[in-house]
Amino acid sequence: MELQDIKKTDRLEKQIQFIIEIDKLKAIRRQTLLMNRSRQENDAEHSWHIAVMAVLLSEYTGKQQLNLLRVIQMLLIHDLVEIDAGDTFCYDETAALGKAERERIAADRIFNILPVDQATLFRELWDEFESRQTPEACFASAIDRLQPVLHNYNTEGETWKKNGITRTQVVSRNLPLKDTAPELWNYFTHIMDNAVNKGLLKD
Amino acid sequence: MELQDIKKTDRLEKQIQFIIEIDKLKAIRRQTLLMNRSRQENDAEHSWHIAVMAVLLSEYTGKQQLNLLRVIQMLLIHDLVEIDAGDTFCYDETAALGKAERERIAADRIFNILPVDQATLFRELWDEFESRQTPEACFASAIDRLQPVLHNYNTEGETWKKNGITRTQVVSRNLPLKDTAPELWNYFTHIMDNAVNKGLLKD
Repeated sequence: MELQDIKKTDRLEKQIQFIIEIDKLKAIRRQTLLMNRSRQENDAEHSWHIAVMAVLLSEYTGKQQLNLLRVIQMLLIHDLVEIDAGDTFCYDETAALGKAERERIAADRIFNILPVDQATLFRELWDEFESRQTPEACFASAIDRLQPVLHNYNTEGETWKKNGITRTQVVSRNLPLKDTAPELWNYFTHIMDNAVNKGLLKD
Repeated sequence: MELQDIKKTDRLEKQIQFIIEIDKLKAIRRQTLLMNRSRQENDAEHSWHIAVMAVLLSEYTGKQQLNLLRVIQMLLIHDLVEIDAGDTFCYDETAALGKAERERIAADRIFNILPVDQATLFRELWDEFESRQTPEACFASAIDRLQPVLHNYNTEGETWKKNGITRTQVVSRNLPLKDTAPELWNYFTHIMDNAVNKGLLKD
């Protein structure tokens, strides 16, 4: 075998190893219930769902030049660190302690299974998503936070009620939506009003 | 409320209705086992996994101009018709009877929940994927077929053995990979050799 062929094979082996590794995301359970309330959602399904949402809802950012491919790539990989770090319920302040450090260590391990150039790309996508500074990251993050609101609202607020979540907590977490996509923010506040009126969410 | 606002709200309501509807994809079970063999994979997880694979493996098409966004969009939505039509095991010839018609009826219902322009986009993406004529559709389809091979090979061929699948069947189904991504095809034939040698797949 030629040296070039060996290098190519080594590259593909790393990519395949990563593809096998990330299958574990299908076993990371979130707090969110499926719409039919049969079970909790997992991170892989969630990542798929928000990627489709990004395709459908990017028009509300008002940004013609939004790089949708980058948004989707961020959403597809944003939860991979949870393979090691686990899912942290967004309203659990105790569990949030050390989360950033746990996830950084996870990113170091998981992305580095890939060949260097792709490990760098995935790490950059993840860092961009976490930093929420670019229009793409702001939109991706807003969609990531809006999706469980839709799930909670359409499952009689089961997770909200179980954890005694208040409107203030959900609004605070979704506040970035206000600047990112004002029409989606209006829709969100409408959901909040209804959820409080129906007793799904504490005022 | 102004007429324009009502139209906008109507548009967003349709998009949200679609987002809620497609949550059902998380309940459509495939024959494929997860890598840890704990359960069967569902369509939503599968769609996520192959979208990430497309990001990592598009370099093997040798096509610099491949529209990766279009590939990913196809992969994200390609199985939505199975919400109504169900998953058909790819080697089940009896179940395959009427599959195309069932899926066409499903596409008519599901995509048309969306506003007309987005229903048209999603239908075009699905038709393109199914027709396998464009470089994007050929690659997307090849990845969709390669992923369960990786799962089967890494789960001791459980689904292959249970269903008495032969090498000829798997090779036939993955033949499009040969022209689409020759290096991935070489890797695939290597897997086939090993699978037969290990007794995971009938020769």
